[in-house]
Amino acid sequence: MHFASDNTAGASPKIAEALIAANSGTAAAYGNDDLTAAVERRLSAVFERDVAAFLVATGTAANALSIAALSPAWGAVFCHRESHLMIDECGAPEFYSGAKLVGIGGDCGKLTPAAVAATFDEFLPGFVHQVQPAVLSLTQATEAGTVYSASEIAALVDSVRPRGLAVHMDGARFANAVAALGVAPADITWRAGVDALSLGATKNGAFLAEAVIFFDKARAENFGYLRKRAGQLISKGRFVAAQFDAWLTDDHWLDLARHANAMAARLGAGIAAAPNARLACPVEANEVFAILPAALDKRLRGAGAAYHPWAGHGLSSTETAADEVLVRLVASFATTADDVDQFIALLNEPG
Amino acid sequence: MHFASDNTAGASPKIAEALIAANSGTAAAYGNDDLTAAVERRLSAVFERDVAAFLVATGTAANALSIAALSPAWGAVFCHRESHLMIDECGAPEFYSGAKLVGIGGDCGKLTPAAVAATFDEFLPGFVHQVQPAVLSLTQATEAGTVYSASEIAALVDSVRPRGLAVHMDGARFANAVAALGVAPADITWRAGVDALSLGATKNGAFLAEAVIFFDKARAENFGYLRKRAGQLISKGRFVAAQFDAWLTDDHWLDLARHANAMAARLGAGIAAAPNARLACPVEANEVFAILPAALDKRLRGAGAAYHPWAGHGLSSTETAADEVLVRLVASFATTADDVDQFIALLNEPG
Amino acid sequence: MHFASDNTAGASPKIAEALIAANSGTAAAYGNDDLTAAVERRLSAVFERDVAAFLVATGTAANALSIAALSPAWGAVFCHRESHLMIDECGAPEFYSGAKLVGIGGDCGKLTPAAVAATFDEFLPGFVHQVQPAVLSLTQATEAGTVYSASEIAALVDSVRPRGLAVHMDGARFANAVAALGVAPADITWRAGVDALSLGATKNGAFLAEAVIFFDKARAENFGYLRKRAGQLISKGRFVAAQFDAWLTDDHWLDLARHANAMAARLGAGIAAAPNARLACPVEANEVFAILPAALDKRLRGAGAAYHPWAGHGLSSTETAADEVLVRLVASFATTADDVDQFIALLNEPG
Amino acid sequence: MHFASDNTAGASPKIAEALIAANSGTAAAYGNDDLTAAVERRLSAVFERDVAAFLVATGTAANALSIAALSPAWGAVFCHRESHLMIDECGAPEFYSGAKLVGIGGDCGKLTPAAVAATFDEFLPGFVHQVQPAVLSLTQATEAGTVYSASEIAALVDSVRPRGLAVHMDGARFANAVAALGVAPADITWRAGVDALSLGATKNGAFLAEAVIFFDKARAENFGYLRKRAGQLISKGRFVAAQFDAWLTDDHWLDLARHANAMAARLGAGIAAAPNARLACPVEANEVFAILPAALDKRLRGAGAAYHPWAGHGLSSTETAADEVLVRLVASFATTADDVDQFIALLNEPG
Repeated sequence: MHFASDNTAGASPKIAEALIAANSGTAAAYGNDDLTAAVERRLSAVFERDVAAFLVATGTAANALSIAALSPAWGAVFCHRESHLMIDECGAPEFYSGAKLVGIGGDCGKLTPAAVAATFDEFLPGFVHQVQPAVLSLTQATEAGTVYSASEIAALVDSVRPRGLAVHMDGARFANAVAALGVAPADITWRAGVDALSLGATKNGAFLAEAVIFFDKARAENFGYLRKRAGQLISKGRFVAAQFDAWLTDDHWLDLARHANAMAARLGAGIAAAPNARLACPVEANEVFAILPAALDKRLRGAGAAYHPWAGHGLSSTETAADEVLVRLVASFATTADDVDQFIALLNEPG
Repeated sequence: MHFASDNTAGASPKIAEALIAANSGTAAAYGNDDLTAAVERRLSAVFERDVAAFLVATGTAANALSIAALSPAWGAVFCHRESHLMIDECGAPEFYSGAKLVGIGGDCGKLTPAAVAATFDEFLPGFVHQVQPAVLSLTQATEAGTVYSASEIAALVDSVRPRGLAVHMDGARFANAVAALGVAPADITWRAGVDALSLGATKNGAFLAEAVIFFDKARAENFGYLRKRAGQLISKGRFVAAQFDAWLTDDHWLDLARHANAMAARLGAGIAAAPNARLACPVEANEVFAILPAALDKRLRGAGAAYHPWAGHGLSSTETAADEVLVRLVASFATTADDVDQFIALLNEPG
Repeated sequence: MHFASDNTAGASPKIAEALIAANSGTAAAYGNDDLTAAVERRLSAVFERDVAAFLVATGTAANALSIAALSPAWGAVFCHRESHLMIDECGAPEFYSGAKLVGIGGDCGKLTPAAVAATFDEFLPGFVHQVQPAVLSLTQATEAGTVYSASEIAALVDSVRPRGLAVHMDGARFANAVAALGVAPADITWRAGVDALSLGATKNGAFLAEAVIFFDKARAENFGYLRKRAGQLISKGRFVAAQFDAWLTDDHWLDLARHANAMAARLGAGIAAAPNARLACPVEANEVFAILPAALDKRLRGAGAAYHPWAGHGLSSTETAADEVLVRLVASFATTADDVDQFIALLNEPG
Repeated sequence: MHFASDNTAGASPKIAEALIAANSGTAAAYGNDDLTAAVERRLSAVFERDVAAFLVATGTAANALSIAALSPAWGAVFCHRESHLMIDECGAPEFYSGAKLVGIGGDCGKLTPAAVAATFDEFLPGFVHQVQPAVLSLTQATEAGTVYSASEIAALVDSVRPRGLAVHMDGARFANAVAALGVAPADITWRAGVDALSLGATKNGAFLAEAVIFFDKARAENFGYLRKRAGQLISKGRFVAAQFDAWLTDDHWLDLARHANAMAARLGAGIAAAPNARLACPVEANEVFAILPAALDKRLRGAGAAYHPWAGHGLSSTETAADEVLVRLVASFATTADDVDQFIALLNEPG
């Protein structure tokens, strides 16, 4: 009953095999190897467009470097008030870019065009006393386990294009979103107007494999310098590339994500049906946010269930009562139906 | 005959096995796992002192973070003019720390107390118009394949202590230096006055495993924030820890380094004995810097030998003639005696 | 009827005379002159404590440098959501310090201990994924023309001391606050727990004269380097010092502020008494925030009155109706009673 | 006999009058006033081109902001090893820009195309491990009191144009160079290929007045944000503008500079003719670098002469003997012929 994070699972067997397979002979260092080139081709195929891809070590770095590539130092980056970018990266995006993050509220982790438009009113174009809106950053799947549809993304992009903003997508759980929506990856990225994507494989079955993807290669022209200067150019790059290569082969990434999503859905359905618990947000990807009585929470933990309490400022309009707690449960590629069923059974036990 | 870099080799079988062994079950993320704790204990044993260790993804990050921890933004960092820090990290140390690097010359990659003392003359204490000397960074083994003895390090440390500098060691090839000197790791680090060490396993048999080690834990108090903010806190940390764990077990790290050093020595001896080539610097670790006639260089490459030309500003007092080239050959744990012998035979063939 | 800003007035005759008087002979550059030393002594007398003072060119620089001195790069700076620091300095505090500003709401520009305490709940101590609360910055007088009492400041300081925060005061209009409260400057700074003060003379009768004051000189130890590195060490420092010297002599600074405050009070009383206008916030220093019917606003401007419309997010709980506008009127040392009376007469004219 | 610095003199009477004249009535703040607009027009006339000018408070800021405007964060800035930029600004250019300064040697403060070309050899185009050459910064007049001719500047610019570098000129003593050369300001700036100029009035008769000038206005598009973010947007901008306005009117700036240059020439001639002293560099602007016997130096100081000892690494090929000192004497607009003659008489007195 381990639902603490998708970071606590290991790597999928296929990815582990690929890593070991890559460990023979010599290969050019610093991303100049054949596997890295192959990954860029695979990503171009997946996204139906000739993309520029840069492998890095962490999701924080992927996000921070993306922002540094898209924003001037005097830029404002619009993002959800509860996004990873805003609250979980110890200021990395600001450090890398110099830009200022501007948090915007929205139920269950989702921004709306109206909220974005209202935020623009705080910034006077050409007024040098203020940072200037430069980037809109969306999280897909969101920090609250919800998913933007292709048309929602397009509407958000439309809301910022008249002001010339670039659009970034934090895709630490992009695979889960694609699996959930059943769309082409292109439909929720460049076809909807996204300029750069932080694509995370780590949470979805890799050891350590993150990437920044630019859909317009011109934007990537000098990104290699930014990556190196940030200490994110990996010397034996083939080993990160090997993970991405296996992840992308034969839709393995989507298989892993579909499983995680299915386990979260099973968990969500069980919670929704339980008499004494309720969902805080719709379960659309691999995360479940639930509101539990404090006593039940205590009992579940006592029985060995692992998951995190959640602060949830603005996560949802659903308020918790004084004797309730908001918690997050995350399913991964390695979560089993048995795990889930055991948890749900426990939930339904008389207290 | 692949001598391009120790970054082009893969991982040792033991390290590969350890990585796979770590890939079962769940483990706390972000370095809160048991393996990471075990690595810190192992490092404390190896260094005979209770150290604080922080795993990161790249050597550039290890160096840049070390400098950021040791220097104020208005600090000067003394380092060799040809050091990795100075010329091969695209400004990462400056980006992370805000400090200014001050390059100092020295034959075959080694600084001397006299050269350091002379550099101090350029900085007036308390003069706010200038950055102020804050850190001395030494590379061990050096960028030129040479090694500082324990007493040389102590003398360098002594030369900066009256001015209060902290001392950093770039140990991307620290294992090779320890293996070469046959000393206790403590003797060339904290016992000689080193405050922080960038310890690299990647070049010496790991996939991706670097660490920053503080010998005085008080210096590490807020390092966790610096690491996270730099995008260097690895989510599935156990997989980097597993590599270090295997690397440090039963002196595997020193076995790997001894082999690399022995292969470099064999290569160096062959070059020194060849009628038409000579060594630019003494071969003391796993790198060989040689001066070859341009025609020979061409012939060797034509026959399949791989190695890099080297710029070598200040690398050595040995000058190259107009028809000569300076080259670098690097041996790794995976280099074979056959490789070396084939290269030397080629060298001695009539042109 | 010029109420656009206290930045649009010139310098007081006494300050102009002092500047010219200082313009004879030679003087040591970069703040090593006698007048600069004299200013530090005067400030120590004014604050009843041996302070360290650093003259700089702009209020933005004074604030940004103060934050850089008080916060680590991974720190969070609590400030009012509408403070100058947060919205009017194009990211300068973040640029200088690396820290992250956290905006907190509060009526009429004032923070409350409860709101500060609630903000702490968003930050988990020791959690490396988040920036860590490091500084509380208060604006005195506030951006909304209100003033904190000594006990209000002490209560705010008390609310952050258990978490170890340093306290900064943005005193661009500090003179107005002191004049309004009739307290000793020490009472609303170090005696109440303030660590560093941005003290502005420019808005209150100087040409260009701002300072950063540290009440504990130990905090200032390395500030000279920060100031120089920020391009804020003024070469002919005597000319900024001369302004401060005259400003502080014989309570000239308080005389200027008292006049400005009196003019604002007169303006505020007239607005409060007018049938078709109302005050958005109490008038406590030299700024007046008023809500006017749009038609009246148009008429006033047409008649030559100069003042700024104001965005006023969170400035006040007073909402503006659709046909109303929120405006700011500022009085300076140079504002005359005639100006004010002419404006009020205009306000009361039949539309 | 005060020759310590041109920063120790005050402001010229004309500039003092202009400042006082500007101190009446109200004026728009933050550079939106009429005088600031007038200065931009005057500068456009002086430079025979429609320039963009930005007033700032210090020469350090002018230089640091120029570099930030011209270089990416991963750029290398070529400058003289002994330039102000490199050694006298406590890292401000690096702080503002993120770039790395690369010091290049050259006799008496002057760079040569050959030395610049040799420096390029250290940087491999497109090699992400290294910062990439982005800016050439020249000092005119140089740190050693010498002056580049228009053709020398053009030759230096030619040497970097094939690699696409932008060209900055540190003109803290630009007036002295123009006066010395008798050229049109355009000839040694944009007509020779200079992109941005730090133009200093402070050392040449102003209180506090520095500017950054872009000859191609497109380069200045976002400079207003950089300036504000750096705390360099002056609130009562008219008072800096008033100084520039008077400085530029009727060639006052050149008159002041011609006088300073003449006094330096008189000083230089006296030293060259003295039996026991010699010049270290040609006297071409308002600075004199001389080598004196230590005993003479002591006697001169004892008699009241004020000047600075100089470190002079690489300043000149002229070596000082063990019992000699290198000193710098600076003449300003306020230096008198009597001052100079008194000093020379002292120099020639029997020891």
